[in-house]
Amino acid sequence: MIEQPAFTVEPWGLTETELRIDLLAQSESLFALSNGHIGLRGNLDEGEPHGLPGTYLNSFYELRPLPYAEAGYGFPESGQTVINVTNGKILRLLVDDEPFDVRYGKLHKHERRLDFKKGVLTRTAEWTSPAHRTIRVTSTRLVSFTHRSIAAIVYEVEPLDGRSTVVVQSELMANEALPSTGRDSGRDPREAAVLEAPLRSLEFQSREAMVELVHETNHSALRMAAGMDHMVEGTPQARVSAHVTADCGRVTVIDVLEPGQRLRIVKFIAYGWSGKRSLPAVRDQVGAALTAAHHIGIDGLFAEQRRYLDAFWKRADVELEGDAEIQQAVRFALFHVLQAGARTELRAIPAKGLTGPGYDGHSFWDMEAFVLPVLSYTNPESVADALRWRKTTMPIAQERARQLGFAGAAFPWRTIRGEECSAYWPAGTAAFHVNAAIAAAVIRYVDATGDMAFEKETGMDLLVETARLWRSLGHYDVHGRFRIDGVTGPDEYSALLDNNLYTNLMAQRNLFGAALACERHLGRANELGVSADEMAEWRSAAAAVLVPFDEDLGVHQQAEGFTRHQMWDFAGTKPDEYPLLLHFTYFDLYRKQVVKQADLVLAMHWRGDAFTAEQKARNFDYYERLTVRDSSLSSCTQSVLAAEVGHMGLALDYLAEGALLDLKDLQHNTRSGLHIAALAGTWLALVAGFGGMRDHDGTLTFAPRLPEGLTRLVFTILRRAIELRVTVLPNEATYELLQEGSMLLAHHGEPFTVTFAAPVRRTIPALTPRPRPAQPLGREPPPR
Amino acid sequence: MIEQPAFTVEPWGLTETELRIDLLAQSESLFALSNGHIGLRGNLDEGEPHGLPGTYLNSFYELRPLPYAEAGYGFPESGQTVINVTNGKILRLLVDDEPFDVRYGKLHKHERRLDFKKGVLTRTAEWTSPAHRTIRVTSTRLVSFTHRSIAAIVYEVEPLDGRSTVVVQSELMANEALPSTGRDSGRDPREAAVLEAPLRSLEFQSREAMVELVHETNHSALRMAAGMDHMVEGTPQARVSAHVTADCGRVTVIDVLEPGQRLRIVKFIAYGWSGKRSLPAVRDQVGAALTAAHHIGIDGLFAEQRRYLDAFWKRADVELEGDAEIQQAVRFALFHVLQAGARTELRAIPAKGLTGPGYDGHSFWDMEAFVLPVLSYTNPESVADALRWRKTTMPIAQERARQLGFAGAAFPWRTIRGEECSAYWPAGTAAFHVNAAIAAAVIRYVDATGDMAFEKETGMDLLVETARLWRSLGHYDVHGRFRIDGVTGPDEYSALLDNNLYTNLMAQRNLFGAALACERHLGRANELGVSADEMAEWRSAAAAVLVPFDEDLGVHQQAEGFTRHQMWDFAGTKPDEYPLLLHFTYFDLYRKQVVKQADLVLAMHWRGDAFTAEQKARNFDYYERLTVRDSSLSSCTQSVLAAEVGHMGLALDYLAEGALLDLKDLQHNTRSGLHIAALAGTWLALVAGFGGMRDHDGTLTFAPRLPEGLTRLVFTILRRAIELRVTVLPNEATYELLQEGSMLLAHHGEPFTVTFAAPVRRTIPALTPRPRPAQPLGREPPPR
Repeated sequence: MIEQPAFTVEPWGLTETELRIDLLAQSESLFALSNGHIGLRGNLDEGEPHGLPGTYLNSFYELRPLPYAEAGYGFPESGQTVINVTNGKILRLLVDDEPFDVRYGKLHKHERRLDFKKGVLTRTAEWTSPAHRTIRVTSTRLVSFTHRSIAAIVYEVEPLDGRSTVVVQSELMANEALPSTGRDSGRDPREAAVLEAPLRSLEFQSREAMVELVHETNHSALRMAAGMDHMVEGTPQARVSAHVTADCGRVTVIDVLEPGQRLRIVKFIAYGWSGKRSLPAVRDQVGAALTAAHHIGIDGLFAEQRRYLDAFWKRADVELEGDAEIQQAVRFALFHVLQAGARTELRAIPAKGLTGPGYDGHSFWDMEAFVLPVLSYTNPESVADALRWRKTTMPIAQERARQLGFAGAAFPWRTIRGEECSAYWPAGTAAFHVNAAIAAAVIRYVDATGDMAFEKETGMDLLVETARLWRSLGHYDVHGRFRIDGVTGPDEYSALLDNNLYTNLMAQRNLFGAALACERHLGRANELGVSADEMAEWRSAAAAVLVPFDEDLGVHQQAEGFTRHQMWDFAGTKPDEYPLLLHFTYFDLYRKQVVKQADLVLAMHWRGDAFTAEQKARNFDYYERLTVRDSSLSSCTQSVLAAEVGHMGLALDYLAEGALLDLKDLQHNTRSGLHIAALAGTWLALVAGFGGMRDHDGTLTFAPRLPEGLTRLVFTILRRAIELRVTVLPNEATYELLQEGSMLLAHHGEPFTVTFAAPVRRTIPALTPRPRPAQPLGREPPPR
Repeated sequence: MIEQPAFTVEPWGLTETELRIDLLAQSESLFALSNGHIGLRGNLDEGEPHGLPGTYLNSFYELRPLPYAEAGYGFPESGQTVINVTNGKILRLLVDDEPFDVRYGKLHKHERRLDFKKGVLTRTAEWTSPAHRTIRVTSTRLVSFTHRSIAAIVYEVEPLDGRSTVVVQSELMANEALPSTGRDSGRDPREAAVLEAPLRSLEFQSREAMVELVHETNHSALRMAAGMDHMVEGTPQARVSAHVTADCGRVTVIDVLEPGQRLRIVKFIAYGWSGKRSLPAVRDQVGAALTAAHHIGIDGLFAEQRRYLDAFWKRADVELEGDAEIQQAVRFALFHVLQAGARTELRAIPAKGLTGPGYDGHSFWDMEAFVLPVLSYTNPESVADALRWRKTTMPIAQERARQLGFAGAAFPWRTIRGEECSAYWPAGTAAFHVNAAIAAAVIRYVDATGDMAFEKETGMDLLVETARLWRSLGHYDVHGRFRIDGVTGPDEYSALLDNNLYTNLMAQRNLFGAALACERHLGRANELGVSADEMAEWRSAAAAVLVPFDEDLGVHQQAEGFTRHQMWDFAGTKPDEYPLLLHFTYFDLYRKQVVKQADLVLAMHWRGDAFTAEQKARNFDYYERLTVRDSSLSSCTQSVLAAEVGHMGLALDYLAEGALLDLKDLQHNTRSGLHIAALAGTWLALVAGFGGMRDHDGTLTFAPRLPEGLTRLVFTILRRAIELRVTVLPNEATYELLQEGSMLLAHHGEPFTVTFAAPVRRTIPALTPRPRPAQPLGREPPPR
């Protein structure tokens, strides 16, 4: 955990003014830069000290065997693990032969700042060497949103108190030694496997201030090239030389500086990789990118970055009055969600983005269930790209469905490139709801953008094949109910139960959605072999889906039988026994009423149309008592539903907890990367929670209401290429369009149309207060 | 599978007259000799060719890490694997420098015979060497029931057609190279892990015709000594020499024989092992055993073996008229069950006995649930020993219960020495019914023997600690029903369901049984901390146990919700897709109505008192349609219940299938050892099936009835030190005691008392025929 105050509270950036070696790994995740294609952890320029060095290329992974002491049919034999690739961030500095290392000498001043508007990480250090020479180092690092293969660093050194011989070694280093990532390595399933020296050199070369290294992975046979080039501004004495070996390229700059003089090095870094293209193709791609970087120039890159972000913030910003910390947190969250999704382009958005190796760099269902809903309304082309990636993996998913004995496609629980990499099937293969999340993301994106070409060319395949999966997974009982037995829902403290409510309702949406899309694209449906009979079967199954309800208690069941299980002994569980999964068996967790993360409550968010207001209120109260939030994917959903059922203070508490999850390292694993879906949840808690936004049937509806303490909430979303701005005050809300057009909306259940010319203002109805529900002992969210 | 006719059909032995190299591994299991302490596979004397060399010492194992790609709390980290120890069976023969190897030259005559009365394996071979010299080799091998550390071989060679120089190398060999055991190694969870060179030499020595080797395992740190000594009778020219290295001791005998002359070598083999005793102690134990063997002499050993078996067959034989093959099979079965259990003495009875390395040499619940019921009535001291072994593991089981979060003791699903070795918890840890099987075995043994001292000193601990486990595993629902949720029953094609009927009814017996035993031994109960309140809690829980029943279908549910699951697509399952576990995922198997092995039907056997006759008949018919018998632990139980509900022909078919399981290798894995529990099931199918014997409440009851084709069934059982012989004819049954005393019994529901003086004859009531129920397509038992 990161105790306060580690960062200054400010609206448009994250600033650290003290260097905490013990928190380096966490800050490296928080200060990570990425465009979704390349990711650089916020490692110090000089490479050391580090928490965890990290440079990641989207979908660049190594294979590793998945061992089983007792194997079973269909258990995946091989896993994919993201690897730390050739590090181009390193700029080692020697001052009069003394290495600049903050652990020695004296660091007078330290500041790092991540700028959400400029999209750069800046650093300033003033340091006196053990030999008593004082210098100032500044650097500005960027991973370009507009040129996806390019990163750049501006590195400046100036002596402050006397003449200095300054040597800068700018490096490209492959196969860095890595520390173990976890506090409890090998035991915590959330940590990544560490692979030693995963890269094999294929080629290396240098000329002038440029170096290129080409490597290949041993098992996955992916090729990558990394290149760097430099522009040096120093005194006339400045000299530049280059040296390269298989795993290390080094460009050395030497200069002698007087106080007032400065050595400035612009370092361009480029990456290219492929599993198919040849060595020369990959290598030359890097050369071309470096040439392009020179052509644009560093100032050009900075300016393009700024313009890209200005456009983003214009259509996606969330403004908040009354809580400066959450204001900062939501922009931090949006910035990192954008970084994770911006330029993935037919590759996945991993659970940690490209900020760390956690979860082996895998993508899960939360990409579709948490990240894409945000991007659908803020950066929709990222959604189309991510779903197109899913479609590229369709043959693998179809093959997996065949292996499992089902029709359609069974998308993996966790993967980098499409193959199932989950080695624990009760919480992997059995969690079929990932398929419904994909379908829901298709439906939402198409609704939000009106992109019918996408629906026809990509969405249809995904909807049809997942609908086919559900039809074959479920069956009718003698009473005509459509049952989906023995599956695992979002809550990972339950598994293999019959008729998980979330799964069943999401499958229902999937089946109906597929039928509707087929009606819109009959020709494409025909190409996919969908008959009218099959569409009718989907509609019948959807209409008959079993929704488990406990008549005794008057609440829905998370799964059939769930509410008859024994209550977890919350009173007997000690604070240090959380997260429960590290202290209790799955056996015991699965058989009792204890919820790791919102599951039925999540169903009430995304399928709120399937519940009455009274059911939502009763269900929310019941499941609050059971939910321990050992997952980062819970507080945002609890915030959304708390707001809906009228627990405004509780909603704020959950919002704050979720918003600060990584900034305060509440789950103790920010070191291995940010929780991108939880960051997306910050937006959801504000927009779907206090904004009350829902998109159940293609119509946007709002039910805004602020908790005490928040005085103003403004958010902008993009719908069908029109920006809609919603301003929420304690007693009223205003809806306005920022472009020509009109939009049918609803405010607390009342439909209305807003046009560009005429913003609509509506009063917020009064809330009947309800008693605040209880949480498990000791698991209450911190009060805001 | 072994096609007929591999063995001659005979009442008291198993004879092979042709050597099938392709079936060597199977015949090595069938011809294995053991006394429960030492086990020798039926490898050829000369060591090669072999299917799988095997020499096993009960509970002598090595540790191996259990890997998990995704670990979880409470997953066992280390497994125990039985190892092939120093092989003392080898007698290599050279005839005029030509090694006797049946793969070369010509084998004119081959016979091996396992004699159930003498307890020896004999072999005769007549062979012409590639150099045209013809010899006869005979051997007789024994593992002594009366001297548990001793095995012996009498080996004789005679030339048939001319003078021969004969060299016999009698060996003790450690760390033999082993072939992989399985047809699909590493993928079939029933196979054992193969460990390379598991033994490390500590000491070796030879003198005259004696050799001793002492070794230690690398990780489990168990020490073992193996010794051999020889008595040689040959011509005056015969010479004997010995040579020893760390892993190989060799005694060489050379002689020159004319036709009519014979070289006869008596080889005594002894083993000692310990995890605690010192090297000298273990070594000297072997020396002492060899001295004892010399003292008794080979003829003495043979005579004692015969006397031991005569006594066994007198009290335990099952005679059958009308099916000579089943007659042979049931004696084969009883012989191997006796071999597995005879001299275990505070060690476990493994699933494969000591006949092969299958299942890693582990013991499972079937020791108590299938093997001990037979031994309770045929060799009860073995039952007391096996349960005393369980008690020695109590501290481990208590610790495991603590780790899992429960009270009492949680005995392991699979183990050699007591630690849980199951690496797949849904079919391991979750199968808590092993604990109820232990309690039931205690209750049955005490009922069968009246051994109150055992109940007080051993049984009480086991009953009390398992009752405590059940009390803490279960909970009351709002309607006051005692529920045991999320457990796995005997059927391994279901897992983690609520209220498995078998488990609940067996837990009920366990809870009631513990309370009753505590009433009988209040002082001991007090020592164990059992209060009157606790006893009352057990009785209340037992009385309230939920017994799931489907009102729509009018049948009991294997577990709550089971009968609402989708039917397995039996029609769409191809014959080569069995066993299903090798071709379908656990996910799919668990969620559908398909039964690997009797589960609810097993409950109707051991807890038949909890069902009406009508319920049994309806349930049997329903579950017949679902049961594929992919386990060896099913046909016997189906036979027992088929007989009870009146499907006599079907009962015979199942009896035959179970009885011939290993003799015909029906499950294709006899190569890695016999299925001891299934062999026990042959006795159960006859005695509990056609004999209708039950012991539900401490009273023995019978409901005998023969199927068409069987004309007479006679079985003897031991109850409270009195032998009861039951003779069943098609229309009547006779009950007689073979010693003084009297016994309260029942015949088809009518109680009666039989005394030594007066056998009781009763008519068998007529049976109302019922339609034969259907089995899954292609899974019908072969018609008898």
